[in-house]
Amino acid sequence: MKDNNTFREIGEKLLEADSVLVYPHVNMDGDALGSAVAVCRTLRNLGKTCWILIEDDIPRNLQFLDRGYCTCDQNVVSAPDVSLCLDCGDVSRFLKRKDKFREGKVNICIDHHRTTVPFCQYNYVDPDAAATGQLVYYLLQEMGTEIDGEIADAIFAAITTDTGNFQYSNTTKECHEITAELYEKGVDVRRVSQQVYESVRLERVMLHGKALSQLEIFAGGQAAMTVVTQRMLRETGAGMDETEGIVDKLRAIDGVEIAILVKEDVDKIKLSLRAKSRANVAVIAEHLGGGGHTKAAGGTMKMTLEEALPLIRQEVENALL
Amino acid sequence: MKDNNTFREIGEKLLEADSVLVYPHVNMDGDALGSAVAVCRTLRNLGKTCWILIEDDIPRNLQFLDRGYCTCDQNVVSAPDVSLCLDCGDVSRFLKRKDKFREGKVNICIDHHRTTVPFCQYNYVDPDAAATGQLVYYLLQEMGTEIDGEIADAIFAAITTDTGNFQYSNTTKECHEITAELYEKGVDVRRVSQQVYESVRLERVMLHGKALSQLEIFAGGQAAMTVVTQRMLRETGAGMDETEGIVDKLRAIDGVEIAILVKEDVDKIKLSLRAKSRANVAVIAEHLGGGGHTKAAGGTMKMTLEEALPLIRQEVENALL
Repeated sequence: MKDNNTFREIGEKLLEADSVLVYPHVNMDGDALGSAVAVCRTLRNLGKTCWILIEDDIPRNLQFLDRGYCTCDQNVVSAPDVSLCLDCGDVSRFLKRKDKFREGKVNICIDHHRTTVPFCQYNYVDPDAAATGQLVYYLLQEMGTEIDGEIADAIFAAITTDTGNFQYSNTTKECHEITAELYEKGVDVRRVSQQVYESVRLERVMLHGKALSQLEIFAGGQAAMTVVTQRMLRETGAGMDETEGIVDKLRAIDGVEIAILVKEDVDKIKLSLRAKSRANVAVIAEHLGGGGHTKAAGGTMKMTLEEALPLIRQEVENALL
Repeated sequence: MKDNNTFREIGEKLLEADSVLVYPHVNMDGDALGSAVAVCRTLRNLGKTCWILIEDDIPRNLQFLDRGYCTCDQNVVSAPDVSLCLDCGDVSRFLKRKDKFREGKVNICIDHHRTTVPFCQYNYVDPDAAATGQLVYYLLQEMGTEIDGEIADAIFAAITTDTGNFQYSNTTKECHEITAELYEKGVDVRRVSQQVYESVRLERVMLHGKALSQLEIFAGGQAAMTVVTQRMLRETGAGMDETEGIVDKLRAIDGVEIAILVKEDVDKIKLSLRAKSRANVAVIAEHLGGGGHTKAAGGTMKMTLEEALPLIRQEVENALL
């Protein structure tokens, strides 16, 4: 495995370049896009040609970060001096753009995923960093370029989203030190938090409300299960993707060890399982024809809701009782 | 209005004392209890007699902070050397304990509420502090006493709760600087976050679900309002204190500028108002017989739900349209 380069080496490559294409991963999150925006704005402030090349949509709550930086047009720059991928563990994270990525005269990877094996000419991979945005901040400091309010907002967005707003166990002293410094750069924490966390679709809130008010507790209070039906989607106008987060709310219930969200698809049942501490939901998912991790698993059942629910209850009870 | 004393003066009084009683406010929150625990443990570590005197229950999600510090027994110490109230704007915040408070040979107030007029012999009131816990941290630093992991947890609990986990507009650079320093003192951020935010009563989840699934949108999508009735409390088994957080979820809806939670009390209506960015809900609250801050206000209306709702809608529409 290649050793890391230094931020100085990577910074020099960026400062030498006239044109840079930045690659966040597909299904971009706040860390991928925030990091990309911070770099893109920095390089544009220096008069360089820089674009963030994407292949899918920007999530609604992150669109405020893109002030004309993102494009899906692979011809926006031909053979750029640098291809820089951010928060990507390997090319599978930018599959439709991988050939374009290789067009770069120099390619660089900055990432914080534990599984990442350096695959570029220049690499900086630090699994102990809570967010790639943290590494980008250190890079910009090394480059000595100005961090303005917009760059500060982008780095804060990266850090707050990847740390679950400073609550996840990956949160470190450095996250708070950097955020404190971002205040001096003019970060607007309120604005970013509002955009990222406080622009929830009404339909989503209604759906979560319905789902939670109809939850079922069993296995002596250790299991919480709720159902989202096609009818509930029609009544609220929400999409099935907006069920995201419901199962976590079930798991947060005092005494609940296993949380189950049952989604009624058109011709099948989709299942999301979460364990709080000791239970292994991967085993339950396997028994029901699915799979996953010990604390988060899922599956698909080719049957009706009425048929699926008793089977699910039984498997969960077997695991808990 | 008396000027503030220095942390040195206040610290000396605490260090000279053999016995200290600490007074958080009624309906204690994370800032009041966290600040009190930080001081109490510090003084006990020094071998002093110290108790936190309370007059009501500790909220479930904060009980982990009390490791034998809190008591309702006003005779636990007679005529203590120091009475210290924390996060209290005036004696009305510890009404049932005010005579006991005056028993202290010296009385001290540390607070951060803008409306607080110093009313003790020694006072430190800083409205720019995000939390009283922040002021307690500075006090302990001035005292030069050891801040151990438990004290760090208590101060972190105070700061994270009063800043809405670093999201409210009162959050400052100092909040992050202090939190970064708490990491060096052994703060367990994950443990505190889990206790404070992730051990939710089933009844609370059910109540929030009901309230959100019945929300009303008006003023062209700029206002979101929902009601919690006595019947909903009976049906879910939740307490009115468990409505906390509902109004924030309403404010988080895309396009919503003003969020309103209407609580049906036995013989009156209680109102919670939140503004997202530009609106001033203090004015609305005043028109309805209440008051508060521009972004968070409330009030009590001596009428039925049916009478109150149109009045509230009208005031909110006047403010928005």
